[in-house]
Amino acid sequence: MKPNFSLRLRIFNLNCWGIPYLSKHRGDRVKRLGDFLNMESFDLALLEEVWSEQDFQYLRQKLLPTYPAAHYFRSGIIGSGLCVFSKHPIQEFTQHVYTLNGYPYMIHHGDWFCGKAVGLLVLHLSGLVLNAYVTHLHAEYNRQKDIYLAHRVAQAWELAQFIHHTSKKADVVLLCGDLNLHPKDLGCRLLKEWTGLRDAYLETRDFKGSEEGCTMVPENCYVNQQELEPFPFGIRIDYVLYKAVSGFYISCKALRTTIGHDPHGGTPLSDHEALMATLCVRHSPPQHTPSPTHGSAERSRLISVLKEAWAELDLGMAQARWWAAFAGYVICLGLLLVALLCTLAAGGRVREVAILLWTPSVGLLLGAGAVYLFHMQEAKGLSRVWAELQHVLGRAREAQDLGPESQPALLLGQQEGDRSEEQ
Amino acid sequence: MKPNFSLRLRIFNLNCWGIPYLSKHRGDRVKRLGDFLNMESFDLALLEEVWSEQDFQYLRQKLLPTYPAAHYFRSGIIGSGLCVFSKHPIQEFTQHVYTLNGYPYMIHHGDWFCGKAVGLLVLHLSGLVLNAYVTHLHAEYNRQKDIYLAHRVAQAWELAQFIHHTSKKADVVLLCGDLNLHPKDLGCRLLKEWTGLRDAYLETRDFKGSEEGCTMVPENCYVNQQELEPFPFGIRIDYVLYKAVSGFYISCKALRTTIGHDPHGGTPLSDHEALMATLCVRHSPPQHTPSPTHGSAERSRLISVLKEAWAELDLGMAQARWWAAFAGYVICLGLLLVALLCTLAAGGRVREVAILLWTPSVGLLLGAGAVYLFHMQEAKGLSRVWAELQHVLGRAREAQDLGPESQPALLLGQQEGDRSEEQ
Repeated sequence: MKPNFSLRLRIFNLNCWGIPYLSKHRGDRVKRLGDFLNMESFDLALLEEVWSEQDFQYLRQKLLPTYPAAHYFRSGIIGSGLCVFSKHPIQEFTQHVYTLNGYPYMIHHGDWFCGKAVGLLVLHLSGLVLNAYVTHLHAEYNRQKDIYLAHRVAQAWELAQFIHHTSKKADVVLLCGDLNLHPKDLGCRLLKEWTGLRDAYLETRDFKGSEEGCTMVPENCYVNQQELEPFPFGIRIDYVLYKAVSGFYISCKALRTTIGHDPHGGTPLSDHEALMATLCVRHSPPQHTPSPTHGSAERSRLISVLKEAWAELDLGMAQARWWAAFAGYVICLGLLLVALLCTLAAGGRVREVAILLWTPSVGLLLGAGAVYLFHMQEAKGLSRVWAELQHVLGRAREAQDLGPESQPALLLGQQEGDRSEEQ
Repeated sequence: MKPNFSLRLRIFNLNCWGIPYLSKHRGDRVKRLGDFLNMESFDLALLEEVWSEQDFQYLRQKLLPTYPAAHYFRSGIIGSGLCVFSKHPIQEFTQHVYTLNGYPYMIHHGDWFCGKAVGLLVLHLSGLVLNAYVTHLHAEYNRQKDIYLAHRVAQAWELAQFIHHTSKKADVVLLCGDLNLHPKDLGCRLLKEWTGLRDAYLETRDFKGSEEGCTMVPENCYVNQQELEPFPFGIRIDYVLYKAVSGFYISCKALRTTIGHDPHGGTPLSDHEALMATLCVRHSPPQHTPSPTHGSAERSRLISVLKEAWAELDLGMAQARWWAAFAGYVICLGLLLVALLCTLAAGGRVREVAILLWTPSVGLLLGAGAVYLFHMQEAKGLSRVWAELQHVLGRAREAQDLGPESQPALLLGQQEGDRSEEQ
């Protein structure tokens, strides 16, 4: 690679709102999205909520001349909704399905049936290894009383760990997607602190688009205006995040978003706004050691966010165990009830009533059994993340105790070292 | 690191057969296992089927002076059964739960409830990065008519991919566990060909233990003799696999197994035999390029095993879709039946019979619904692996078409290059 190596990457990200039969003007929007992607010829287009594989196949055919490589990440019952179109050959791909993703009995929310995941693509561009990740985390339906908070924090941690462990030999890491997290939310801070990823919106000097970079805005005719009431400018939950790892420097030259209508002023492409980033990768300037105070400040932030996440998961675990215990009691009651009804039916007294009540009783029993098993699994999943956080927290504290002269790269694994290279 | 660097690693692996209430003499066996591990002081002890977390906590307390670091991998409803005890500090750990792991309605087999997984530990030993993996794949209950074959192949692929993507910066990779695969089985070949891992039993010149390295032998009093009838010496399904990645060379100096009783001649520690390996890691001799014919032979083997796995998953997908379609028909029939029964009950004719039949009809409907959703998910999971295999196969074929002069490291990703360093 030449010393004056420089690479420009144009990235597109959009949550497409492609729910068959439910999302308005889906066919037309997918068609216009295809036209726009063909016209703009991005290096990489990462899409979420492409729930119908037919939509993906349609786009694949349409985009083939401009984006010869494409992949649809299949998972869960409905699918992850994630797909990607690339101008460059995809060297490798794989995916990780999140262990926790809502509750199957919350059918009207539907997240559990989707199998939310993170997809990974490895691309080799002019000798540079790019790991591109695309993801979509569990939706937030009620910000005041968010029953999915622990799951979303666990997903953010699994995402961070997946990136951390799979990108150790990458030169550049890119993460796009709908995180369903506001910039200051716990999950977002946890992800950024543990991976060292930087936010294109906060980093770029050339931003044009919606107020405060929001990706769901009241101007968009598909957005539920009531949900956005507490946020006059809208909310920012879709991101382009990046970092350079080994001897490279990456910056965001420009970031654009749509503003409630399609890039040509027509009806919007989705209920979310599209993100269009121009990234520039260069060889990093001669490496310098980060100042001890900087390393220490980073470590303090990491410790603080890890503690916060740990406490949140503690609450989530207690709740999961409460539900499992409650379901356990219901199972016992259900067994007693069924036994009583069998006796009554056999004895001939109130026979018809007993038979009538038998169905709901057995239903109750089976339902409680399923709820018990589900929440046992939930508690196991949360305690797994809890244990990982505890371990990382312990090591971060050890590093802090060793004082500012301790080497963060040795004590906090890879990414602290990576960050120092990016300064 | 000094140029004459050399590291000796003593590894212990055992499937502990620790099913609460069901496994014979569990308490006594766990106690004796603890005594043995303390006495031998291995660098790393990797255990499977420690289903009870109490057993893990007991061992943790007992082994604390000799193995200060330990971790229990939690997943699924029951747990993964995986745990690890280490003489050296564990830098990082994480896990991946397999997407496909049997069927929930096969309650008597129970694998689905376990959440079978692969656990990863990162250790730093004298400046060397060791990625140690421990796993346990789905059991094989009927070798002649194995309904779990596609799931086990998919698990082997997920395991291989997890190792491939998370070990890119490791110096040494170690995989221990109960693969529930015979050495020539498709899953085992797929795993070895895609990761480049080598089998301690086949590599070592100093083996002492059971005939043909078997890890379930007829001499073991806990083994079901009937199941082993077709295999006079027993079966080899537990493995120590390893490879060195970057500038290192690893060899197995010695491998021992128990032979149907504990290492001191008493009743066995488990129904499986323990594996004890002494590995030696050194700086690799000056690197040489592999001969083109060697690269080509490896590529042919890889292509052949990928094609075989691809065909197996194709069959599995067809079967999953058949079951989903069948469940779909049953749902339609169930709906018709429930409607008919409601009409009969309302009409007053054969009312009691109608009410009596209502329970099994609704049960049938719900059951078929669950089966439908499960097999839809199964088909999605299998098609995800199928797509990954297809992509790798395509790239391997491209490499083959380019002829022997093509650079395997560029075309087949990391591991071909790794292998060349290990020659």
